[in-house]
Amino acid sequence: MSYRYEIRLSGEGGQGIVLAGVILAEAAAIYDGKNATQTQVYGPESRGGASKAEVIISEEEIDYPKALSVDLFLALTQAAADKYGREVKPSGIVILDSSKVMTDPEGSFALHRLPIIETAKEAVGKVMVANIVSLGAIVGLSKAVSRHAIEQAILARVPKGTEALNLRALEAGFALVDGA
Amino acid sequence: MSYRYEIRLSGEGGQGIVLAGVILAEAAAIYDGKNATQTQVYGPESRGGASKAEVIISEEEIDYPKALSVDLFLALTQAAADKYGREVKPSGIVILDSSKVMTDPEGSFALHRLPIIETAKEAVGKVMVANIVSLGAIVGLSKAVSRHAIEQAILARVPKGTEALNLRALEAGFALVDGA
Repeated sequence: MSYRYEIRLSGEGGQGIVLAGVILAEAAAIYDGKNATQTQVYGPESRGGASKAEVIISEEEIDYPKALSVDLFLALTQAAADKYGREVKPSGIVILDSSKVMTDPEGSFALHRLPIIETAKEAVGKVMVANIVSLGAIVGLSKAVSRHAIEQAILARVPKGTEALNLRALEAGFALVDGA
Repeated sequence: MSYRYEIRLSGEGGQGIVLAGVILAEAAAIYDGKNATQTQVYGPESRGGASKAEVIISEEEIDYPKALSVDLFLALTQAAADKYGREVKPSGIVILDSSKVMTDPEGSFALHRLPIIETAKEAVGKVMVANIVSLGAIVGLSKAVSRHAIEQAILARVPKGTEALNLRALEAGFALVDGA
């Protein structure tokens, strides 16, 4: 992981993109002891239902909380891939939901097409945990935060009574990329 | 409301500061049709339990999502008032919880000491809705977003089954500042 690590999560309203960003930033800052920022930018395009969250993680103080050169980009819908799949570094990682995104963003990054939504629905049993499956894939591929930190941050943020379900979703996300 | 309106919410972990920031930004962007950003910055001080969220609202595109010159500052704890009560404009608004904040931030802004936590606990019946009472006071004093927009944004974000409780909390927040 480089000095400043920029993550952009995107999808549509109801997929829990904002919560995933909050969890990732809290994992980095509260449980891994780094600096982190978490930002949502809402513009005219967000009224169409597209949703975006950005997380910056750094060992040092973060002056500018907007992503400039994205290290990891996640898209759970085609519209999100089209709108937000820019500014990804050549050395970056792109994760696309394989059932929802048909056209890849252009660029020479490492592309991972993963059955995130299908895994949430079929392996875990709740499509609404696609955001947590995504976090497992993101952490498994990027090591942006530790596995311990992401678990703790999930437990602190998800509704009481859903902890086991969400940890299963995280494990399913790790499993999607183990060995990748 | 000026061209760029900067809101900084602060308190401690568990008070729902992050959720309040998300709701305020979504009220502005999704329901009032403006541009908005919502940012959490986590640094070493956030490991002590202090929590901060910033929301910028503008008619135009927002280039820089960090607050530079704060129009409205909320503090629900003394530690938060001490750490984050800087950079408030002379024409700004400061809202402090009257039971938790004993020492006012220095400056010549309009100061409102309000029984936010007590209102959540006694008038609404749940201390955990102090964040929503705060939103009522913020919107009542600043008109940063419309009352309709804040209601809709709350209904879209709070857990199912708690809608009526949260709307009561919002109304209690409006009532704290009506006529102010």
